[in-house]
Amino acid sequence: MRNILIVGAGKSTAVLIEYLLEKSQSENLTLTICDLSLETAKKLASNHPRARVLGLDVFNEEQRDAALATADIVISMLPARYHIQLAKACLHFNKHLVTASYISDEMAALDEQVKAKGLVFMNEIGVDPGIDHMSAMNVIDRIRHAGGKMLLFESFTGGLVAPESDTNLWNYKFTWNPRNVVVAGQGGVAKFIQEGRYKYIPYNRLFRRTEFIKVPEYGKFEVYANRDSLKYRKIYQLEDALTIYRGTIRRVGFSRAWNMFVQLGMTDDSYRMENSASMSYRDFVNSFLPYSPTDSVELKMRHNLKIDQDDIMWEKLEELDLFNAEKKVGLENATPAEILQKILMDKWTLAPEDKDMIVMYHKFGYEINGQKKQIDATMVNIGADQTHTAMARTVGLPVGIAAIKILNGEISTPGVQLPITKEVYAPILKELESHGIEFREEEKEYLGYNPYGQVGG
Amino acid sequence: MRNILIVGAGKSTAVLIEYLLEKSQSENLTLTICDLSLETAKKLASNHPRARVLGLDVFNEEQRDAALATADIVISMLPARYHIQLAKACLHFNKHLVTASYISDEMAALDEQVKAKGLVFMNEIGVDPGIDHMSAMNVIDRIRHAGGKMLLFESFTGGLVAPESDTNLWNYKFTWNPRNVVVAGQGGVAKFIQEGRYKYIPYNRLFRRTEFIKVPEYGKFEVYANRDSLKYRKIYQLEDALTIYRGTIRRVGFSRAWNMFVQLGMTDDSYRMENSASMSYRDFVNSFLPYSPTDSVELKMRHNLKIDQDDIMWEKLEELDLFNAEKKVGLENATPAEILQKILMDKWTLAPEDKDMIVMYHKFGYEINGQKKQIDATMVNIGADQTHTAMARTVGLPVGIAAIKILNGEISTPGVQLPITKEVYAPILKELESHGIEFREEEKEYLGYNPYGQVGG
Repeated sequence: MRNILIVGAGKSTAVLIEYLLEKSQSENLTLTICDLSLETAKKLASNHPRARVLGLDVFNEEQRDAALATADIVISMLPARYHIQLAKACLHFNKHLVTASYISDEMAALDEQVKAKGLVFMNEIGVDPGIDHMSAMNVIDRIRHAGGKMLLFESFTGGLVAPESDTNLWNYKFTWNPRNVVVAGQGGVAKFIQEGRYKYIPYNRLFRRTEFIKVPEYGKFEVYANRDSLKYRKIYQLEDALTIYRGTIRRVGFSRAWNMFVQLGMTDDSYRMENSASMSYRDFVNSFLPYSPTDSVELKMRHNLKIDQDDIMWEKLEELDLFNAEKKVGLENATPAEILQKILMDKWTLAPEDKDMIVMYHKFGYEINGQKKQIDATMVNIGADQTHTAMARTVGLPVGIAAIKILNGEISTPGVQLPITKEVYAPILKELESHGIEFREEEKEYLGYNPYGQVGG
Repeated sequence: MRNILIVGAGKSTAVLIEYLLEKSQSENLTLTICDLSLETAKKLASNHPRARVLGLDVFNEEQRDAALATADIVISMLPARYHIQLAKACLHFNKHLVTASYISDEMAALDEQVKAKGLVFMNEIGVDPGIDHMSAMNVIDRIRHAGGKMLLFESFTGGLVAPESDTNLWNYKFTWNPRNVVVAGQGGVAKFIQEGRYKYIPYNRLFRRTEFIKVPEYGKFEVYANRDSLKYRKIYQLEDALTIYRGTIRRVGFSRAWNMFVQLGMTDDSYRMENSASMSYRDFVNSFLPYSPTDSVELKMRHNLKIDQDDIMWEKLEELDLFNAEKKVGLENATPAEILQKILMDKWTLAPEDKDMIVMYHKFGYEINGQKKQIDATMVNIGADQTHTAMARTVGLPVGIAAIKILNGEISTPGVQLPITKEVYAPILKELESHGIEFREEEKEYLGYNPYGQVGG
């Protein structure tokens, strides 16, 4: 019997636990499901004979050490900032570790010690980061193995609403943490390289410098730039590539409309508004518009943002009930971003029958035998229901698969790592296919950086 | 004999020292002029028999204490962050202190001790802050004394180029620290209150939400909002006023053009650009525009910022030589703001014969005997030459006047303070008038918040 310790049993953990319980017989596994709330852990264990539950505070050393002692491998599904506590304990007790989060500097600093003990600390093995790394390196390695030289790498991911549940004018609902959507793009300038030229997009232009992509069977989407595409140069060894660009996928028209909020200052999370609780939605909007003794909030808004009479953007605003003078914000001492989030959650929360969708799109431009070529790879995954969301599946499955493969010694190279070596990605991508998570590849004419697809200059 | 210790002998100190030396006979003064550089101090002392010079490092306790021991009052003309060192030493040695900087939290925390020792620590007594406080409180106190109730307070200041030296399309040259101009507005959202409604302007709209003012004899100017107008509510006891708005004055058209830099991201000081030293001005511009294999930087710029063929904004850009492919940036590892500053300094540096200009404009709306009234007060000061700039005069004179009046016991209320009491502002404003720094008042029809003067919505 091998015991897997799962720390943090949030909503997104359901698919992971289901997968591991399904494999528990054939793989000879037991699970220990820990959460701060014992109730939450119990729910996910659903009385399975091979699942044990535990109320666990990760900052309580005694509890943590006792739980770790029984484990053969640890999966941390905690928020990213808590991993390091667990990682240090894993190192101490000689346990492997799996997380779906970006490798923090503190985590990276453990690498030598982890290697010395022959442990595998696998990180960034969810969907983004995770499936993006694996599917990208799968094609990049294949191109290189055939003697090709990478010229261009673009990679886009989006967590969206499935077409059958796409019922609002924004073609968007919250399928993950709403807060991240509201403050998206505020961490710093978007940096990337296009045909050898460094490019920078400030926050206030981010949602106007989109480009279009077409996904077979799913139609047209748009992409806005992620913060730091340049760091993938090192991770994927793309030092010679002329173009490296990563972005976030939305349905066409979302970004242009979202930009209205950015321009007005409604996404700002850096200060608290006066009298926020008693403010109506209309008052909130008016706070960002010039005072007038007579003009309506609507006309000021149209004039301020230059929204024409017949522009669909206006209907998007109305759909959110943004001009309602009765609905109160009801949040004490709130930032603009917090208030905007509340307003959006009224309308963009998934209904019980709604399904989500993950879309991933990579472009690989390369040169081989003096010829320039391009491969586009796309993956679309649609959730089954509110538990088996596309997000929970594309995060939970690779995490679960990796954990078992580490236990079985199929993934054995030690160190603090992310899934970019063939040893790791090949077997995991193969098993993901059997769960319907697969990429469709297409050869394209190499055009260099998307020369005709730009919007807004 | 009373000795005044002047710490920090930067360019802006010349007028202050001249003023004090002129008064040294009649007021029975000696000056000790200290600077890190003895040479700088010597230059300003110009061998005057009542001036002594000293090389002084304010962090060298021994030097500092020796200098302080000889002083009757200390004037700190150091950068604001260094005042606190000196303030603590002044407290220890029982010396009065004068600075032209905003009261920091650390400085404010000394108030009780300063009062207990009967000392005057006068701050914010330059031009802005300084003359703005004094001239505003002069009118506000008068209105209140007559039984009026303040409804509206707006206050604007600008450091500009004098009309006779106004020779470029931007109607602007650097008359003070260029860096402050480039990063202006980036400290956080602009907050104010208009007719009882809180208003917020984010950085990316700041230079499009201007309003116009007319200054007698000098024509039309525009104003963009300062960061936190609300704090003046407490300072000036304007808790009941419906409108409080402070702003920065520019010539009309400056802000709309400056907004181009803001929109592109050229004023960002938060990251360093790749290969900044070898970049041409044209490359710099192109970094903020989408890649194209064929389109010119010029056309991309016009399209991106929607600049029409016949728009004067374009000529403003050309005047800066922004599209020059030969001129190199030449700054290693520079931020966009640093590079933009360099480009602007090529064109906006004052020529030897150029004169600067300070413009100040207050509006006071009030109610008296059931009637609403308004007073507008304006002050314009033009520099004589590069030493006797309007900036050096409007900072140096109030500092010097205050120092003498504190020495003479005319200003005697102890504490860490700014010049908002009649005891302080009345005699200083009176003496400033004799130096040609005076306000012109005009009664206006009360219209409430500038209802027709808004640009850009």
